[in-house]
Amino acid sequence: MSSEKLKIAVLGGTGNIGEGMVLRLALQNLMAEGVKNEVIIGSRSKETANEAAKEAISELENCGFDTSKITITGNSNHEAAQAAEVIILTIRFGHVLPLLHEIREALEDKILITPVVPMVKEGDLFVYKPPEEGSAALAIQKNVPASTKVVAAFHNIPAGKLRDIVKCKAVHHALVCSDDVEAKKMVINLTEHMGCMKPLDGGPLKQASIMESLTPLLINLAKLNGLRDLGINFS
Amino acid sequence: MSSEKLKIAVLGGTGNIGEGMVLRLALQNLMAEGVKNEVIIGSRSKETANEAAKEAISELENCGFDTSKITITGNSNHEAAQAAEVIILTIRFGHVLPLLHEIREALEDKILITPVVPMVKEGDLFVYKPPEEGSAALAIQKNVPASTKVVAAFHNIPAGKLRDIVKCKAVHHALVCSDDVEAKKMVINLTEHMGCMKPLDGGPLKQASIMESLTPLLINLAKLNGLRDLGINFS
Repeated sequence: MSSEKLKIAVLGGTGNIGEGMVLRLALQNLMAEGVKNEVIIGSRSKETANEAAKEAISELENCGFDTSKITITGNSNHEAAQAAEVIILTIRFGHVLPLLHEIREALEDKILITPVVPMVKEGDLFVYKPPEEGSAALAIQKNVPASTKVVAAFHNIPAGKLRDIVKCKAVHHALVCSDDVEAKKMVINLTEHMGCMKPLDGGPLKQASIMESLTPLLINLAKLNGLRDLGINFS
Repeated sequence: MSSEKLKIAVLGGTGNIGEGMVLRLALQNLMAEGVKNEVIIGSRSKETANEAAKEAISELENCGFDTSKITITGNSNHEAAQAAEVIILTIRFGHVLPLLHEIREALEDKILITPVVPMVKEGDLFVYKPPEEGSAALAIQKNVPASTKVVAAFHNIPAGKLRDIVKCKAVHHALVCSDDVEAKKMVINLTEHMGCMKPLDGGPLKQASIMESLTPLLINLAKLNGLRDLGINFS
């Protein structure tokens, strides 16, 4: 890694899942075992990203955390990706490929994490609708430089629990897939200190379609059975 | 229902998942709330089925259960299906469609439960390989009479835990899908008293592909992470 602290860009870090990711990544700096990092929120507008970064810091302060060891900044998606070693795509599938095209040169040699789930609503329920490559993960891999290490992770963690950094006591399994063994190990390590996730090795990237399809399943099960914010545990 | 006790045929009841199903269905006759039933094991040969029925009864006796209220018999797949109101297909996908063709007339107006998972081994891992209909469940529905009520269930319960009627204390979620609301309710009720399963409404039959794809995921996760006999819980 090029710096002592790992630089992590959360593109779409102003969205639902993105907000929780930013807070939980930042909090690792306060943990004995956490992965020390600087978080860069990426957004289409630098101003929105900056605003979100300030709000994240205030939220951590309001929760009583010591933010002196925490760095959260904001920038455009391209600048954020450029500055980072690890990039997390917390963006809807429909916007992902155009964005990758736009920031392509900033992705060389980086670890790119995709929690992206291509799904559509049909009637009351969601249906998994992967692109022709078989999954969002494989479509993403096809649209980045060969040196980019694509890791599929964080699909099945409910946004509400991820966001709830103080009260959420749930710990759910988080599957991590990649064809790059080192990148997968790094993301598994990052996941271990997220506070509400217990990582499991999900195998090669081609297995990501099953992980992606679990997200509409979780949403549908919640709706059909009067539950909410469902996560998964394997035992 | 045509009799006081529900007649349930377990086709392929001499196999791995089939054996556990037979024992756990039979044990419901000893429960206050269980669905009272007669189990008919179906197999290609009547003799094999009969033998399996006798072994199941002895196993229950050896475990100390009072078998006076339990009926387990064996027959050919066709005769077993003919006699039953509910038919469970604990058979490999490759053998399912030819069997359905053979026993088609015995399926009229019946509830047909499919835990069938079409999957293949690629290298060390299993890959979900659904037929062109999108899932085994939808392919099965296409190959039975219109009056047959197809219910997808019991895909994600590890055979080892299902089979271990005495020591297994695990309770995993079991998803149940069907387009027939009454048949789904009946199977949910049956599942509730299986001893190691907690049913969840999985929605219409078209959702079965996700449930089916979870089985190779569970096998792969166990292999990749040094675990075994994995089941799923949603919370």
